[in-house]
Parts: sequence; structure tokens; C-alpha cells
Amino acid sequence: MALVIKKTKKIGKRIFLDHASTTPVLGEVLGAMKKFWSSEYGNPGSIHSFGINASKAIEESRKNIAMVLGAKSSEIIFTSGGTESNNLAILGVANLFKKNSNGAKLHIITTQIEHHAVLYPFKYLENSGFEVTYLPVSEKGIVSVEEVKKAIKENTVLISIIYANNEVGTIQPIREIGNLIKKVRADRPYPVFHTDACQAPCFLNLQVSNLGVDLMTISGSKLYGPKGSGFLYVKNNTPIEPTTFGGGQESGLRSGTQAVPLIVGLAKALKIAEDKKKKESDRLISLRDYFIRLVLKKIAGTKLNGDMKLRLPNNANIYFPGISGEQLVIELDVKGIAVSTGSACSSREEAPSHVLLAIYNDKKRADGSIRFTFGRDTTKKDVDQTIKTLDSIIKRIR
Amino acid sequence: MALVIKKTKKIGKRIFLDHASTTPVLGEVLGAMKKFWSSEYGNPGSIHSFGINASKAIEESRKNIAMVLGAKSSEIIFTSGGTESNNLAILGVANLFKKNSNGAKLHIITTQIEHHAVLYPFKYLENSGFEVTYLPVSEKGIVSVEEVKKAIKENTVLISIIYANNEVGTIQPIREIGNLIKKVRADRPYPVFHTDACQAPCFLNLQVSNLGVDLMTISGSKLYGPKGSGFLYVKNNTPIEPTTFGGGQESGLRSGTQAVPLIVGLAKALKIAEDKKKKESDRLISLRDYFIRLVLKKIAGTKLNGDMKLRLPNNANIYFPGISGEQLVIELDVKGIAVSTGSACSSREEAPSHVLLAIYNDKKRADGSIRFTFGRDTTKKDVDQTIKTLDSIIKRIR
Repeated sequence: MALVIKKTKKIGKRIFLDHASTTPVLGEVLGAMKKFWSSEYGNPGSIHSFGINASKAIEESRKNIAMVLGAKSSEIIFTSGGTESNNLAILGVANLFKKNSNGAKLHIITTQIEHHAVLYPFKYLENSGFEVTYLPVSEKGIVSVEEVKKAIKENTVLISIIYANNEVGTIQPIREIGNLIKKVRADRPYPVFHTDACQAPCFLNLQVSNLGVDLMTISGSKLYGPKGSGFLYVKNNTPIEPTTFGGGQESGLRSGTQAVPLIVGLAKALKIAEDKKKKESDRLISLRDYFIRLVLKKIAGTKLNGDMKLRLPNNANIYFPGISGEQLVIELDVKGIAVSTGSACSSREEAPSHVLLAIYNDKKRADGSIRFTFGRDTTKKDVDQTIKTLDSIIKRIR
Repeated sequence: MALVIKKTKKIGKRIFLDHASTTPVLGEVLGAMKKFWSSEYGNPGSIHSFGINASKAIEESRKNIAMVLGAKSSEIIFTSGGTESNNLAILGVANLFKKNSNGAKLHIITTQIEHHAVLYPFKYLENSGFEVTYLPVSEKGIVSVEEVKKAIKENTVLISIIYANNEVGTIQPIREIGNLIKKVRADRPYPVFHTDACQAPCFLNLQVSNLGVDLMTISGSKLYGPKGSGFLYVKNNTPIEPTTFGGGQESGLRSGTQAVPLIVGLAKALKIAEDKKKKESDRLISLRDYFIRLVLKKIAGTKLNGDMKLRLPNNANIYFPGISGEQLVIELDVKGIAVSTGSACSSREEAPSHVLLAIYNDKKRADGSIRFTFGRDTTKKDVDQTIKTLDSIIKRIR
């Protein structure tokens, strides 16, 4: 056999500031997954040792995830990611109430700043006869508990509110809304409360009893876990039915052979996120505030989108007046810096951000804004480099 | 740093004869996936270079899969596996026809030997007002084209027939049924034809135009590809709507950030399955026939379930009269041999196999049968060992 000489291509470090769109998978996570691909590869539904080992790995992962949430193992339903979890939560609850409604009109509530994976299931339900309230948000990008309270009617069966917005990073008062809903439910067993928490795990409290949620969506690909993994927390006794049918895995709520390596990796990544939460949040808050301060100071006319304090430690969303956000993303990319105009999870749709429109009702601001989302590998040097690059690009193209 | 001395635990080779339940992931597949976890980890919806590289990898995979099927790239819709693909196909078509039916009763057809991931979506549709025909099969486990023809009505909008059964391995006359449906469609644009081909890729022809299918389900975890991967072939212009809503990925049919490594691995595994198909089928047919011949000869009263010829090269499903199938699975497991009583994808449900009941209408036969499914690593030595072990267990427990 001939000797193979590997060519290594020298490329400069790329700076990835788009961690809200997705995160790299941790080495430790890959390590935890490894043996479940080709060695312990059994179908967890099988009764032989291969199957039992696979099943044990799933139940261990389920237990570890439940511990992070302060939940019971039976309340964790594994899915293929955030979109599937959101759809299962929203359609699964709404369909069940509809079936038992004897044709009565039902009401559901969400916000104008949800991810499309929540907004579009709501639109679908609206088209199938549900009355939907899309709550507005303040000029800081926050939904008001008072507005939620006013919106709740006798026939409100479901409320879904994003925990931390994926575009502007604003953190919603989930706990207060949870408390409000608890009071409403003193009289009746609904509304059910769901939160899309995909952006939360690395930074925010995930204790479900503290938050007062019945359903919570988590995606592996946003917390340094495997792509294609996720789960839905489903509080015991929540009225919900499955949206797909088959082998009856995951307590009958999500049929399909469980992807053992992805589940094991997801549990590992969530545990690490939990362990690093405090320290990494503090570090990123400093870095974020430093970045925001310098950009607003150095680049004339720039404004921060969303609340300064009630926002994710890793999110800076900035308006650059007179600049096309899309052009700026491309110019930065040429310089090796990856940022985003908004959600990446929308198949490159070209419409301006519905989140920024909901907050500012200003198409120019929506078109001229950029989201920077930092991650575990982001350094002060990266941030300085980004500010310098931004400054020079904007001087050139303005 | 201290030297770490790895302990290696010596265990005997376990013999895995349950490849219909799942397959180990190939080393080459893991290799192809590798860089998309932590290096090229972009969200394929992003417009920067990370996103574009991810998107390119998906489109390359889509093209390669389409080539194996003789299909167009735009006809491949990535999902999380077989169950999701089946649900999308069946519910996606049925819901769309229902919406446009002005309340008219609609008819759909399937068989009594489908996987639960087809059977239960049909049951769900039956409960929501569809008329369903569950076609019987012959004593060989084969559905008759004539029966399909007789079942088709003016209002039949969907027919779903498994390509090769997952329990008895019998191969259904998909091509002939495809031709029949083409003739019916000379008059009207339906019925739509779906096949669950999860067991087919390693052994059978996947050319969609040859088969005459509109929709075809493939699962990565049954073809030595990644767990949690799969796709649905959707012929252009097939009337189908999405069942989940969000970012509009996969031509709007399957929202959710695509899991790039899983997709890349799936394409790789399918290509390898295609390349090995002829040779591996021939090898396994010999091994299977040798195994069946010896078992039927050595162990008194045993009978083969399903047709001898029209069956998957890797499937031997055998009735052991007077023996509990479940006990036999456990006894074999103790001896290091993994086999199955039927589908593993049913959360260990204890009911006797609906497939064997449909064929033989004999609960004893359904309870006393075992499925052996061979794989790429199965050798004649494994088969001999299995026969010897079977013989001694049965002598002991009978």
C-alpha cells in the first residue's frame, strides 16, 4: 500500500457569531454518542440484549434530562428537534380540545414574535377554525403579563409564548405568565401553557415547576448537542394527543424508533449546558455589553434592538441605518465572520423579520438589522476583530 | 499526566440476526458524517459560508439519493425516519383530499400486513371518517393484484402497500400494482400510490418509475445508515400537504432545520447499499436457504412462514410448534444470539404479530414464530452456531 500524504489546507480562523442558528457539537457529546452508532446499535424496542442496552441508554438519558428540568422521566418525550416538538405541543393539544369541543369555537393565544415553528402551526389552526390572538410586544420586545391576562377568555385552551426570542434575544416573563395561568386554572383545567425554550438552555432557568409550564420545547442543535435531536417536556396529565402514529414509542406520543445516539448526545449536551450556565452567562454578558457599547459608539446611528437587560447573554441585535442587513451579512462573510439577519430556520425567505416588524413596525429597521450571537468559543479577540471589520465595511459601503 | 491503561473486557462475539429491526452504522457512513457535526456545522438556512457549505452538502446528498431512485432531486424530502415518512405520506395526502372533498366520503386502501407506522395512520383516518379497506394476503403472505383491483372505487384517493414485509420478508407485487393504478388514473388523478420500502434498499429495485409509485418511504436505520434519518420520495405534482409547520424547509413539506450529518450519512449508506445489492443478495439467499433447509430438517415440526421465493434475501421467519417465541428469543439471547418475534418497532407490545395472524389466522403460530434477519456481517459460521444453539434449546425446553 502506498503512503498517503495528507494535504492540509491552511485557512484563517472563521469567526462564527451565529450561535442562535445552530451550535457545533461538543467533542464530549460526540464521544458519548459514539458506541451507539455501530457497537450498541440495537433497536430499543427489541427484547434481546442489544435492545435492552439501547433502551437502558435512553432511559438513563431521559432521567438525566428530567433532573435538569426538575421533572419526572415520564415527562420527557424525545423528538427530532424544535420544530417537531413545537408542532406536537400545539397541534397535539389543540386537536384534542377540538375533538372534545362539540363544535364550539376555541381560542388560543400566542405572540407576534414567535419562531415560525410556533407561528405557522397557529396559522394552520386559525385556518381550521380556531380563534387566535397574536399578542403584541413592547418597544423593548417583551410581551406584557397584563396583555396575556386581558387576552384570556373562557374558551382559551392553549397559550404558547417563546421563552427567549431567537432573533432579538429578549426574555419573556414566562414565570409570571405561568403564575397567572395557574390562577385561571383554579376554575377550569385549561388553558394549557407551552413555551418554546430552544434558545434558553445555555443561559436560563429550565426548572419547569418554577416556570409553571405544561409543555416546553428544547432542541439539541441549539445547545451544542446533536443535530436532529430534541424533546418536548410534557407535564403529566396534560391533555395532548399524538400527531403521528406507529409503534407507540415515547408513551404513545411520538412513534418511531428512537435514535439512541442522538438521545444520548442530547442528554450529555444539556447536562454540560447546565453545568456551564452560570459562568458562561457571566462571561458572555460582559462580552455582549462590551460589543454593544463599542458598536453603538463607533458606528454612527446604530441602535440596539430589544431590551438591554432582559436579553440572552449571547445576543446582540443591532440596527445599522442606511445599510442592507443582507449585504452586511455577505460582506462580513467574505471577511470570515458569520452573522445573520434573523432566523436561519426559514429557508432563506427574503421577507423582513416579522419579529423586528412586530417590535418597531419599521421596515427599514427590520431590513437593516443584524443579529450577532456569541458562543462558548467566542473570545474578546473575535469581538474586537468583528467591530473593526464592521467599521471598515460600513465606512466603505455607506 | 498519569498513564492510563485501558482495560479491555473480553466478551464472546454476539451474533446479531435482527437486521430487520435495525442495522449498525457503517464506518464509512460515520466518516462521511464526521465533519458536519463540529466543523462544517452551519444551519443550511443561513446565507453565510457555514450555511452555504451545509446547504451544499444536503443538495449533494439529495442528488445522490435521487440518482439511486432514478428520481429528481426535488422529489426527495428528508425526514427523521420511516415512521415520520409514512405519516407524512398518508396523512399529507389524505388531509389534502379531505379538504377538497366538500364533505364527500373518501376511500383509502392498505393491507393487513403493514408496519404499524402505516396501519395506525390508516386507523386514525378511519376514525376521522375515511372508509378503509385492509386487504388480506394469501397463505404465502402476498397481496393479490386482483384484490387491489377489486377494492379500488371511484372515491379511492390513496393506496399504501408495503414493498417487503418487515416480519415475514414477503415481497409484494408493487410494480404490477403500480401498473394497475396507472390504468385507473387514465380517468382521474387518483388514487395516489405509496409504498413503505424501509426493508427494501439493501435488496430490491428502488427505481421509482419502474415501481410506479408516487410516494416511497426509506429509513436510514434499516440500511446501515444513521439512526434518526430517512426520507420520503414524493413524485413531482403529487397532491400532498405538510403535516408540520415552520421554516418551510424541504420544499415546504417538512419544516425543521435539516440534520446535515444524518442526511450526508443517509446518502452515503444508500449508495453503498445500492453498490452491494446484487452480490450481497446472492450471498444471503444462499445463506438463508441453507439455514431454512437445515432448521426445517433438524427441528421437528418447524415450518417456514411466508413465501419461500418471494421473500427478502435476509429473512427467515420460522414457526416452532409448541414453543413460546418470546421464550425462545430470550433463551437465544442468553447464548449471545439476537433474534426477534416480530417487529421491534412496537414498544414491546405483547400482542401476537398482526402480520402472522393476517396470514395464518392461527394464534399459536403467531406466538411460536421467530424472525431471523441476516446482515452484511453474518457468516456461515454464525448460521451454523445458531442452528446448533436452537436445536439444543428446543430439545431442552420442549
